[in-house]
Amino acid sequence: MNAEIVCVGTELLLGETVNTHAAFLFQRLAAYGIDVYHHVTVGDNPARLTAALEQAAGRAGIVIVTGGLGPTGDDLTREAIASVTGRPLVLDAAVLAGIEAYFAARGRPMAPGNRKQALFPEGSHILPNPHGTAPGFVLEWAAGRWFVALPGPPRELRPMVDGPLVPFLERWSAAAGGARLVRRVLRVAGLGESEVEHRLQDLFARQGRVTLATYAKDGEVHLRLAVKVVAAPGTVPGVAVPVPGAAAAGGQDAAAAPSAPAAAAGGAAPPAPAAALQELDDVEAEVRRRLGLYVYGRDEETLEEAVGRLLRQRGETVAVAESCTGGRVADRLTNVPGSSAYVMAAVVAYANQAKVQVLGVSPHDLTAHGAVSEPVARAMAAGVRRFFGTDWGVATTGIAGPGGGTPEKPVGTVYVAVDGPGGTRVERHRWLGDRHAVKTRSAQAALLLLYRALVETGTPQAGAGMVRA
Amino acid sequence: MNAEIVCVGTELLLGETVNTHAAFLFQRLAAYGIDVYHHVTVGDNPARLTAALEQAAGRAGIVIVTGGLGPTGDDLTREAIASVTGRPLVLDAAVLAGIEAYFAARGRPMAPGNRKQALFPEGSHILPNPHGTAPGFVLEWAAGRWFVALPGPPRELRPMVDGPLVPFLERWSAAAGGARLVRRVLRVAGLGESEVEHRLQDLFARQGRVTLATYAKDGEVHLRLAVKVVAAPGTVPGVAVPVPGAAAAGGQDAAAAPSAPAAAAGGAAPPAPAAALQELDDVEAEVRRRLGLYVYGRDEETLEEAVGRLLRQRGETVAVAESCTGGRVADRLTNVPGSSAYVMAAVVAYANQAKVQVLGVSPHDLTAHGAVSEPVARAMAAGVRRFFGTDWGVATTGIAGPGGGTPEKPVGTVYVAVDGPGGTRVERHRWLGDRHAVKTRSAQAALLLLYRALVETGTPQAGAGMVRA
Repeated sequence: MNAEIVCVGTELLLGETVNTHAAFLFQRLAAYGIDVYHHVTVGDNPARLTAALEQAAGRAGIVIVTGGLGPTGDDLTREAIASVTGRPLVLDAAVLAGIEAYFAARGRPMAPGNRKQALFPEGSHILPNPHGTAPGFVLEWAAGRWFVALPGPPRELRPMVDGPLVPFLERWSAAAGGARLVRRVLRVAGLGESEVEHRLQDLFARQGRVTLATYAKDGEVHLRLAVKVVAAPGTVPGVAVPVPGAAAAGGQDAAAAPSAPAAAAGGAAPPAPAAALQELDDVEAEVRRRLGLYVYGRDEETLEEAVGRLLRQRGETVAVAESCTGGRVADRLTNVPGSSAYVMAAVVAYANQAKVQVLGVSPHDLTAHGAVSEPVARAMAAGVRRFFGTDWGVATTGIAGPGGGTPEKPVGTVYVAVDGPGGTRVERHRWLGDRHAVKTRSAQAALLLLYRALVETGTPQAGAGMVRA
Repeated sequence: MNAEIVCVGTELLLGETVNTHAAFLFQRLAAYGIDVYHHVTVGDNPARLTAALEQAAGRAGIVIVTGGLGPTGDDLTREAIASVTGRPLVLDAAVLAGIEAYFAARGRPMAPGNRKQALFPEGSHILPNPHGTAPGFVLEWAAGRWFVALPGPPRELRPMVDGPLVPFLERWSAAAGGARLVRRVLRVAGLGESEVEHRLQDLFARQGRVTLATYAKDGEVHLRLAVKVVAAPGTVPGVAVPVPGAAAAGGQDAAAAPSAPAAAAGGAAPPAPAAALQELDDVEAEVRRRLGLYVYGRDEETLEEAVGRLLRQRGETVAVAESCTGGRVADRLTNVPGSSAYVMAAVVAYANQAKVQVLGVSPHDLTAHGAVSEPVARAMAAGVRRFFGTDWGVATTGIAGPGGGTPEKPVGTVYVAVDGPGGTRVERHRWLGDRHAVKTRSAQAALLLLYRALVETGTPQAGAGMVRA
């Protein structure tokens, strides 16, 4: 019971839309233990679409088609599935009424093409679409052989997958042996990918049931630990046993290895699910031991969320003074729900006047050292903390480029500073890359410096003598 | 001479990486007039990879493979291409020396696997990789039949495509008839996709040589106009004539339609390239006439760049006061190179204290109307403008959620305000969606309000009486 994804749309092949569906669907299918071996994208061309669906149906039990459910002549998915499965298209009166109501509510005439959005291959289960006019559908066209059609727009596709498609995912997962992939992502900041791999060399070399992989992402390194577990037939949902075959599949194509049903397991008795999860915990603990504070969070937790979690736990507040990052640090901090409890204010002091007026940076420092200097970064962090009466002050000042560089301070020279109960920390960086890269990396460095200061400063009194520069 | 893209990597099929290569490659190929009919992703599995390459080589003249060039046992691209083409792998001594030097410079021992990165199918042209250890290669394995292998990481792949691959792209483009797709993107903000399509209905219905398509993107609508032009054999580079067949291909799968070489054109003489480009200009002019100010920019120009362009032309400055957007408006404004010339400062006044202290919002207004109210938005915009002495002040205040909503002011209620030479403009919005969506849309609305104020305010004196709320 494996799946293949077919994305339909000439706009995808023109590069006008980045295909984010595919990654979303792969993640969901992996979580349900449904393997994907192929992903294909084709344009809005009847012959090529039909050929792609035939090939997919020949090699995968579940074919998930995205896009091509719209009202225009270019939208061919329903016709192609009907042709491949030999199921005629039939009109669903309730869906048609819904589409008519949708237009009536908006005071617009319904285009003739929209009528076709109420056509489904005979025997289809309709997946309602509260976010648009195109419902999806699921069709078991032969025993254990499925077609799924989902609408193209992500805001329509995603809720459909996480809503009406779930019972089908559960069913296919059970048919695939009840395997689930348990994933954990450890988020690492401040270390490069090669350094992470170097420190974990032997763990990568001898990975078994628990597999490891690294992904560089937005200046961070994400380390994925995964283990496959299978719910034994008849067990309570949520209690699972590992796949005996998974250890042998190991590093190579591990997640795409066929998931042997627990019933089919020969040889040694499968370890209890607790043992597999224990193994995952053990690997995580070992990774954390080696990477220490560089691991700031797990799974979906972002660096700004980790910072927020610590500030909230400590009942402390922060204010930000930004120059080269232009608001990015504040933007990231305030992306976190509930951040108004600890983010008091930020000042983007692009003009020197603002640095002096609000942040209390001395005009002498600006003249003597320049706006991009350690004393100014330090003064900005201390100044914004003082002005807004917060526990912590964070500052950035640097040359984002493309203009403004000098031989001593080339483009990419950036100071980040944190002023807090334990003193002031300042770091000088020299980033490569364009303006966007310099802003992104500087904001990341500032949040990381704050994160470390929070972790290393046990209590407001404990950090005396912690000044670094 | 069409192309197929094969992306290799189990991590892609697990959804851990969004495939941004594909869109990048599609855009480049479209610009060179090379059609793509299929895009396939396979895992790190030798049998499936080889099968995918065989199928691709059977239906496309150019097969571009991304990923799988690394040093590990999972990296199988070079072996698979060798197997499909029957070309043995041969060691390139110069590349091997380069890889050895790379490790020596970093004081690390070279892993045995890295040696394999110096192996190439016999007859390959090597594409140097200054950003990593894996060079790419181009192989003409039979007359007019090509394999291209590119490294997986985007920072390695993109410069390779835009550098050493260019002569090959030029050559394939010429072999495909010298067709180029000339694209123009008109960027629309403040109108929904369906409204844009409604206003341009007849243009969509009767599109001919110039094709139109809309894409909703980050709260904007991008309207793509495209026309295919072919450089006639022997003409000066840069002078092109349109593809005669393109008009017939029309809306459906237009860009993926085979590009007939100009020489093969029968019937009517092809119009001069100037005529095709004139037609593009005419369609653009008609679209602009119908959408007016909603078209803020063209091609890559972002809304913040359009705002920057106007501020710079007028020699004016801006300051920003943000509450619910938390720095997003300032971040976007300062993403533009040279923005330090007109962005003076921003204040993220999350706490009411900051609204009073820096922005001069009256505590009475905060109590009587609440922080999320028209008077406070108005006072923030005027206050930040006054405090920093700028020509324009922009403000946002609202409830980004998930907490903080009330029956009168539910989550998503946002005021954006602009204070400038022509008076103050305020808009109330009610966004649906999560915190991220509310921040994004509010920042977009604030920039749009500033853009319109700039366009509609001819001179600092002209706008009297322009107050709106």
